[in-house]
Amino acid sequence: MTSMEEVPLAKSYLLLNHGPVTLVSSAANGRSNVMAAAWAMPLDFDPAKVLLVVDSQTLTRELIEVSGEFALSIPCRRIADKVLAAGSMSGRDGDKFAASGLETLPASRIAAPLIQDCAAWLECQVIPEAHNQRRYDLFIAEVVAAWADPALFSGGRWLFPDTDSRTIHYQAGGSFFVTGDSFEC
Amino acid sequence: MTSMEEVPLAKSYLLLNHGPVTLVSSAANGRSNVMAAAWAMPLDFDPAKVLLVVDSQTLTRELIEVSGEFALSIPCRRIADKVLAAGSMSGRDGDKFAASGLETLPASRIAAPLIQDCAAWLECQVIPEAHNQRRYDLFIAEVVAAWADPALFSGGRWLFPDTDSRTIHYQAGGSFFVTGDSFEC
Repeated sequence: MTSMEEVPLAKSYLLLNHGPVTLVSSAANGRSNVMAAAWAMPLDFDPAKVLLVVDSQTLTRELIEVSGEFALSIPCRRIADKVLAAGSMSGRDGDKFAASGLETLPASRIAAPLIQDCAAWLECQVIPEAHNQRRYDLFIAEVVAAWADPALFSGGRWLFPDTDSRTIHYQAGGSFFVTGDSFEC
Repeated sequence: MTSMEEVPLAKSYLLLNHGPVTLVSSAANGRSNVMAAAWAMPLDFDPAKVLLVVDSQTLTRELIEVSGEFALSIPCRRIADKVLAAGSMSGRDGDKFAASGLETLPASRIAAPLIQDCAAWLECQVIPEAHNQRRYDLFIAEVVAAWADPALFSGGRWLFPDTDSRTIHYQAGGSFFVTGDSFEC
């Protein structure tokens, strides 16, 4: 079972600060979809905002434009193969949840689903910026709810008790990095 | 000595794709500065573009607004203490290069300096977007030159022969992650 504990919105940037790959989920008009995205990062602390780049040809883009919402789920090492599958096919070609093996959870504040077996989740509402969306495929969104698995993130810090639970960073061509050891300066 | 080899612009996103922390350097009116920034990521492949968030109160912001340029240097584990120093003080309070111990290299296409002992470098020219800059502290820039240490990045892939040469990811409060092991799916 996926364990979830609410993260204060003003601390939600900590879930993305280290640059992990994300899963973007979206829903509109009775359809939902999921895609992998490396190009997501925090934009502001309070109110918490994020940036997300979504190509104009994707089904995810269409669902986000219609609904004005998306969720970012931050996957663990143990589902990297499913993340790659979600990043390698289009939702226009069939149900990507079935094809990738990724399973969903309901979100609390938005209609888009969250993804199971992840370390953390951000529920996001788009701040309409037509010029950025059209010219740069760039979305700005406010984080309206945030969650983390308390075994992996607690008290504002990542814990990562084992390699399989670590977050991951996308390189290219099916190659990832696992989030490595932490150190203090 | 810092070893550098040019990276094709259309491959320069690979230097930032895994979400490492960056050093932002800038120069204008006879002054230069450096700051640490976790909120930098690719925006497009070709022409290569990046996103960077820079608080409006910083000296870096002033120098970028005047010059329309900045460099992103991607630091290695071995200079993490200097990165933290550059992220913990303001250039308005004195010469941050002297205070942090970070040393510079000349860039090829912009006046802002690059930072020594880094793994890779992106020279960037701002695409003016006044609304994003004013409302979100968000800069969009085109990458006009890119470089990497060929011992660490070659043929489009990170190599990281030892821990000290690995890139790093910022958590919070002086805590970083080192880029971990790579794996293929």
